[in-house]
Amino acid sequence: MSASIYKKIELVGTSTTSFEHATSQAVERAAATTRGLSWFEVTELRGAISDGKISEYQVSLKIGLRVDEAAG
Amino acid sequence: MSASIYKKIELVGTSTTSFEHATSQAVERAAATTRGLSWFEVTELRGAISDGKISEYQVSLKIGLRVDEAAG
Amino acid sequence: MSASIYKKIELVGTSTTSFEHATSQAVERAAATTRGLSWFEVTELRGAISDGKISEYQVSLKIGLRVDEAAG
Amino acid sequence: MSASIYKKIELVGTSTTSFEHATSQAVERAAATTRGLSWFEVTELRGAISDGKISEYQVSLKIGLRVDEAAG
Amino acid sequence: MSASIYKKIELVGTSTTSFEHATSQAVERAAATTRGLSWFEVTELRGAISDGKISEYQVSLKIGLRVDEAAG
Amino acid sequence: MSASIYKKIELVGTSTTSFEHATSQAVERAAATTRGLSWFEVTELRGAISDGKISEYQVSLKIGLRVDEAAG
Amino acid sequence: MSASIYKKIELVGTSTTSFEHATSQAVERAAATTRGLSWFEVTELRGAISDGKISEYQVSLKIGLRVDEAAG
Amino acid sequence: MSASIYKKIELVGTSTTSFEHATSQAVERAAATTRGLSWFEVTELRGAISDGKISEYQVSLKIGLRVDEAAG
Amino acid sequence: MSASIYKKIELVGTSTTSFEHATSQAVERAAATTRGLSWFEVTELRGAISDGKISEYQVSLKIGLRVDEAAG
Amino acid sequence: MSASIYKKIELVGTSTTSFEHATSQAVERAAATTRGLSWFEVTELRGAISDGKISEYQVSLKIGLRVDEAAG
Amino acid sequence: MSASIYKKIELVGTSTTSFEHATSQAVERAAATTRGLSWFEVTELRGAISDGKISEYQVSLKIGLRVDEAAG
Amino acid sequence: MSASIYKKIELVGTSTTSFEHATSQAVERAAATTRGLSWFEVTELRGAISDGKISEYQVSLKIGLRVDEAAG
Repeated sequence: MSASIYKKIELVGTSTTSFEHATSQAVERAAATTRGLSWFEVTELRGAISDGKISEYQVSLKIGLRVDEAAG
Repeated sequence: MSASIYKKIELVGTSTTSFEHATSQAVERAAATTRGLSWFEVTELRGAISDGKISEYQVSLKIGLRVDEAAG
Repeated sequence: MSASIYKKIELVGTSTTSFEHATSQAVERAAATTRGLSWFEVTELRGAISDGKISEYQVSLKIGLRVDEAAG
Repeated sequence: MSASIYKKIELVGTSTTSFEHATSQAVERAAATTRGLSWFEVTELRGAISDGKISEYQVSLKIGLRVDEAAG
Repeated sequence: MSASIYKKIELVGTSTTSFEHATSQAVERAAATTRGLSWFEVTELRGAISDGKISEYQVSLKIGLRVDEAAG
Repeated sequence: MSASIYKKIELVGTSTTSFEHATSQAVERAAATTRGLSWFEVTELRGAISDGKISEYQVSLKIGLRVDEAAG
Repeated sequence: MSASIYKKIELVGTSTTSFEHATSQAVERAAATTRGLSWFEVTELRGAISDGKISEYQVSLKIGLRVDEAAG
Repeated sequence: MSASIYKKIELVGTSTTSFEHATSQAVERAAATTRGLSWFEVTELRGAISDGKISEYQVSLKIGLRVDEAAG
Repeated sequence: MSASIYKKIELVGTSTTSFEHATSQAVERAAATTRGLSWFEVTELRGAISDGKISEYQVSLKIGLRVDEAAG
Repeated sequence: MSASIYKKIELVGTSTTSFEHATSQAVERAAATTRGLSWFEVTELRGAISDGKISEYQVSLKIGLRVDEAAG
Repeated sequence: MSASIYKKIELVGTSTTSFEHATSQAVERAAATTRGLSWFEVTELRGAISDGKISEYQVSLKIGLRVDEAAG
Repeated sequence: MSASIYKKIELVGTSTTSFEHATSQAVERAAATTRGLSWFEVTELRGAISDGKISEYQVSLKIGLRVDEAAG
């Protein structure tokens, strides 16, 4: 019998427009180099301010990805 | 004299488009069967990933609803 | 040699449309009376419900602002 | 052999006079419609302010209640 | 398009033998009266001691269950 | 359209008699110099001990106050 | 030069009447056998319910006590 | 009228076989020198790894024990 | 003089039988590709439910591994 | 009878040399414009890295300051 | 087979010069009366301010000490 | 338009002399094999004790590093 094993990596996506865009930026960047992405968990919402306006949305997220099957 | 009593229920709304949509999904679902909804508190932001893209936004939230007046 | 010192203030922005709008409301309100805003950290996402729909998005955030140079 | 199972529900009691009164309001309201209440855990102390004075004490609490025996 | 909505309920399972047994007790009790159970999250591990030995394992867990489809 | 903005300030009230008194001390002190106080959140309960008795109750609380209307 | 060292012990006081009374019970019990009590920090507020009413207030608190001078 | 007072002590039990065994180790060790053990709360689950396998399960737990009756 | 440096990686082990088995699955999977595993810290216990029974135990854990000696 | 009231402000001190220096920078900056500083609580330790070395130590701290006597 | 059992005690060390000195003060004080000290965990960094300068560094730490072998 | 993406890795630095040294050890070790290090966040301060003295300072820290530009 086999059991799935997952790894969690932590990324910070950024965007000039929204938290959702920053989140998808991070996920798509991870997907460009890694397979098996399964879920994400937001751990922090922050941002930068310039000239009195939000200049960057920053989302920290943990991404869970399947690493492979392990012998049960 | 009377004092209001509230109950908190915890729901998870989901959406393929955004965290805000997932949040409103959960609130509207609760409203369909329950009266007296007053406020909500977001407790978790997560999501599912398929084929390297976000396939589902998931928002856990506690919803506060007035259950009735209690004798003070 | 000098070292920067920052102050954190905590605001709650509100919006009838989205968490992002509530966030930018708070930042812009702070900018109207304060200089040197540098970053923000979201600490809480809540909202009000009326007639079974979200009537207000509320975002608590800490805003970091540079207060000045200190003698090192 | 049997094992007890408990359910936790979350309520917010309010009072114009004290946190203890708000707590007992929530417990007594739960007791009016539910049997088997066993313990409570305070999760939050908040309140409303009007005209510069505390107008309402609000206590969030989880209440544990026995739901029944389960087959061991 | 539709979006799933889930509810989280919080239970405490108990067992005289192990944390795993206490966990399954709570899940099976919930299953006896509720449909659509999907996942659980352990929130607390506690226990009772009698005569210098563990007499009861207590596991608090949140159980997520699908409540139904909502119009997207 | 306009949106309310709130500021949170953090105070510690003290009292020789009770936590409730310490809480109201902090609220009333804030009200003496600030307008628009709306709610409070207790963040810490501590105290001092002298000669084996509680000599001071100390309550840390965040007070939310409306700062003004912002252009929506 | 010398520096004070403190020890923190954790107690749970109980009372049938109020959280304040439960708190002072714990402090006075500690004072009966220990010298140098300096401060306390409340870590948990719980209670027992019997017959639909609060039968016991339980306050967990850490008590700081000076153990003695250490050589600097 | 009297009120019970409890003390919490924190122990770490270890075992080469399981978390449950590590937990009971700590409880039984406490029981060997202390009376009145009433409950425990798990605060941390950790372990040591040697040669790519778990060589030790480590469970941190707080144990609550009755210290005696206090005059109410 | 030299000082050890460690890296923490986060994995999720799964098992159909127990939390301990899920934990050892994750550790052994890490050991198959990485050297120097030293300790682990459990960060989350969750699981999946199917047909009213626990179908999968899921344990999130951080694994500490020695990366090498650094020049002191 | 009177009771002291304290305010907590949150600052971030920075230093190129150490966390202690960053901490004292923040305290001394606060002292330059504010009276009655009584204690501080460290809430976060962070820093910036440039060219593979720590270029700035950043310490977030809450500073408690006495605001004045309130009528008891 | 035997398993080690550890106890955690919580101390607060103080120093007029640094957090490190306050930490070592607490460890050395514990060592003066207790054997088997194995590790420590910092739980809080605070301090006192006098005349606008840090007058005392305060470090809360839990110290783990081996209490003895238990029969496996 | 492009948006930066960062990765967070978690390391534990050790030192026989101070927390600052342990922190810089971890940063410099990461810099030896990785480019783009931007900031760090301390997550834990611990240490080992031998013969009644601190024998090792251990600092857990998350290090943020820029992984590259993503297409906006």
